[in-house]
Formats: sequence, C-alpha cells, structure tokens
Amino acid sequence: MLTLYTAPGSCGRASHIALEESGLPFEVRLLDLSAGDQRRPDYIRINPKGRVPALITASGVLTESPAILSYIASMATAVQLAPCDDPFALAALHAFNAYLASTVHVAHAHGRRASRWADAPDAIAAMQAKVAENMRACFLLIEEEYLRGEWAMGSAYTIADPYLFTMTGWLQGDGVDLADFPKVADHYGRMLERPAVRRALAAEKG
Amino acid sequence: MLTLYTAPGSCGRASHIALEESGLPFEVRLLDLSAGDQRRPDYIRINPKGRVPALITASGVLTESPAILSYIASMATAVQLAPCDDPFALAALHAFNAYLASTVHVAHAHGRRASRWADAPDAIAAMQAKVAENMRACFLLIEEEYLRGEWAMGSAYTIADPYLFTMTGWLQGDGVDLADFPKVADHYGRMLERPAVRRALAAEKG
Ligand SMILES: N[C@@H](CCC(=O)N[C@@H](CS)C(=O)NCC(=O)O)C(=O)O
Ligand SMILES: N[C@@H](CCC(=O)N[C@@H](CS)C(=O)NCC(=O)O)C(=O)O
Repeated sequence: MLTLYTAPGSCGRASHIALEESGLPFEVRLLDLSAGDQRRPDYIRINPKGRVPALITASGVLTESPAILSYIASMATAVQLAPCDDPFALAALHAFNAYLASTVHVAHAHGRRASRWADAPDAIAAMQAKVAENMRACFLLIEEEYLRGEWAMGSAYTIADPYLFTMTGWLQGDGVDLADFPKVADHYGRMLERPAVRRALAAEKG
Repeated sequence: MLTLYTAPGSCGRASHIALEESGLPFEVRLLDLSAGDQRRPDYIRINPKGRVPALITASGVLTESPAILSYIASMATAVQLAPCDDPFALAALHAFNAYLASTVHVAHAHGRRASRWADAPDAIAAMQAKVAENMRACFLLIEEEYLRGEWAMGSAYTIADPYLFTMTGWLQGDGVDLADFPKVADHYGRMLERPAVRRALAAEKG
C-alpha cells in the first residue's frame, strides 16, 4: 500500500492522478496548506522539506514530483506510463517533467510563495506582478516546442500528462488565458475526460 | 558521438563530469554566457530555452540537467552511474537531483538571474540579499538529511555526485561558508580527487 500526502490544487495533484491511472493500491492524505499542516512536526518527520507531495512506500519516503511520478511509472505493471525501454524517449520525458518542476512551477510559485526569495513587501509585489508574463512565456514554449501530440510526449499517455494538466490548471489564477494556447487547452480538455482525473479531482474535495 | 553544450562554472558542469565518468565518446562546446551566446539564433535552434546544458544525441537534443544526467547513466555500460535495477533507489536518486534542480539551483539563480522574476531594481536587490540565507538552508538540509554516505546516495558513486559538486562550488560566490557543512565539504574534496572531475575542470578553462 502506497500513501500519498498531497493538498488540493497543489503540484501533488499530478502524483495523485498518476496513482489513479496506475492500478496500484494507494491511499491519499490531504493536507491543508493554508492552515500550515505542511510545517507541523509530524509531517516534517515524513518530509523535512515541509512540502507536498510525499509518497510513503514499503522501502521509504519519496519526495519531489518528478521522482514520485517516475517511481509510479516504474511500479505500474498493468499500464505503461513511461517509455521504459527507450533511453532517449525516457530522457525526453524526464526533460519535460524537469522543465515543469524547475521552471514552470517556480514561475508560478512567485505568486503565492514570493516570500521564499525576498523579504521586502515591495519586492514580493514586484515578483507577483511578473507571474503572468513568466507563465505565459513558459506555456508559449510548451505550446510551440514541447507538446508533441495528443498527449504531451506524442501518441502515448505518460506521467508528463498529469503534471502538465496540473500546471495548466494554475493558469487562470495566474492571470493567463488558456485560450491563447490551443494545443494546451485541447490537452486540458482531454485530461478532464479521463476517469482517473475525475476520481482524483473528486477526492481532492474530501 | 554526443555533443554537450555547456558553460564554465554553470550547472552544465554536472553533465560534463558525468560524461567524463561514463566512458562514452563525447565532445564539449563551451558557450560564453556573459557574451550572450545562449541567446544567439544558432543556439536557440538547438535549445529554444536559451540555457545550458544541451546534449546532442543520435536520437535528438536533450535539455534539463536531471534528464541529461539520467540519459548518460542509462547509456554508460562500462560503469554504473545509477541503481538502474532498483526502482526505489533510482527514484531516491531522481528525488535528490530534482531537489537540486528545482530548489537549490533556483535559490542560487536569484543572485545573478533575479531579473527573471521581477523588473524593479529594488526587488532584484532584495532577492540577491536573500541568496545566502536560502542556499544555507538548502545545504543544511542536504548535510543533515540527504547526503547519505561517502557519496550522495551512499556507498556508490552516481549522477547525484557531480550535480551536488557543481552546486557546492557555487557556495562561496553566494556568500556561504562551505566549512559550515562538514559532510558536504568532505564530499567536495573527494570529488576534486577524481580524474574525471579534474579533466572536466581543465576542459572548462578552454
Ligand atoms: N520541487 C517540489 C516542490 C514541492 C512544492 O513546492 N509544493 C508546494 C505545493 S505546489 C508546497 O508544498 N507548498 C507549501 C509551502 O510552501 O509551505 C516538487 O516538485 O514536488
Ligand atoms: N532547469 C535547467 C536550468 C538551466 C539553466 O538555468 N542554466 C543556466 C546556467 S547554470 C543558464 O543557461 N543561464 C543562462 C541564462 O539565463 O541566460 C537545468 O537544470 O538544466
């Protein structure tokens, strides 16, 4: 049994959907980030970083969305969630997810979490003011260069899809119009039709 | 033949060292980031993100340090640079590298590259003023929680090691004293003794 710690609307949604797709047995524990659950001592013992997601496995705890997603793909035997036999295709998938984690997620986090990177209120406001511009630039690159077909990596659904879907879901709150990115918008719509996605979104409502 | 685009002192150093360790045939092309080589049209055709590293392979171009490092590990047959047969250990390695890419590298980038996230000069100065504090917090977590042994992941040298080494090398410039992190400092010293590391550092001098 796997246990995923996540929070509604957070980047943990990607791992949650991947678990729903995987056929693996799992349970979800929802944290309330606005109440500071992620900084409570019992959670810090699980994830010293004080963030979601974290996945409890029989071998130990895993953190970091790209790593949790890769682990789920490697454990899922009933479905293929990554091109495990093709080193280049697998690395291209890793690159897609690494870009989401290290650039797109970071661009978004300068909205609500700007205080990580500066203390002055004016500086925080200046970072928040640039979120829409940076998210737009990221999604323009995804639209034009990296979204390869029906699914993020082409014809096969992979762990890149729930991760992209999760970040696409942040655009409206970040002041970016999804309609400006027709391929990404189509992808978002296709994701919303998947039973696994519907189950994860319903479960987030608690 | 693999071709790595990197720049002296950049995060591309990790991929460069991994190639030196791998036994794979490769060549290195050095960009001058301060001259803006990464934004020239011929390089944007290789990597539309305008960043280093990028790796040209027979199957196509790869970007993103964690993905390039994983690819090198999966192609290197003469040496074992990742625990490819153990899904949990491999995911833990991915988690280590994902943390470096999405949190530690980002903390560092708020020094020289703060203008990515705000326009106002005061805001940029406020971000730069917090770099040392954030890098210190990251390396405290690495020292106390994540550096598992002689090498980052324990007794075996992996692709986490050149990546950690590269970021450790940024501490002094970020105003952080490496001596505050004895295990990380020992790791840095051990890395400096490896012939592959010495070859990569020498090649960066051009
Ligand atoms: N690099 C991590 C980032 C995790 C992260 O920042 N999670 C956010 C939610 S999207 C969080 O837990 N924020 C709570 C906080 O900052 O206190 C990953 O990709 O999993
Ligand atoms: N997420 C990317 C980040 C790459 C990156 O930001 N590289 C820096 C050098 S460490 C760069 O190319 N900077 C040039 C610029 O910002 O113009 C990775 O991990 O490879």
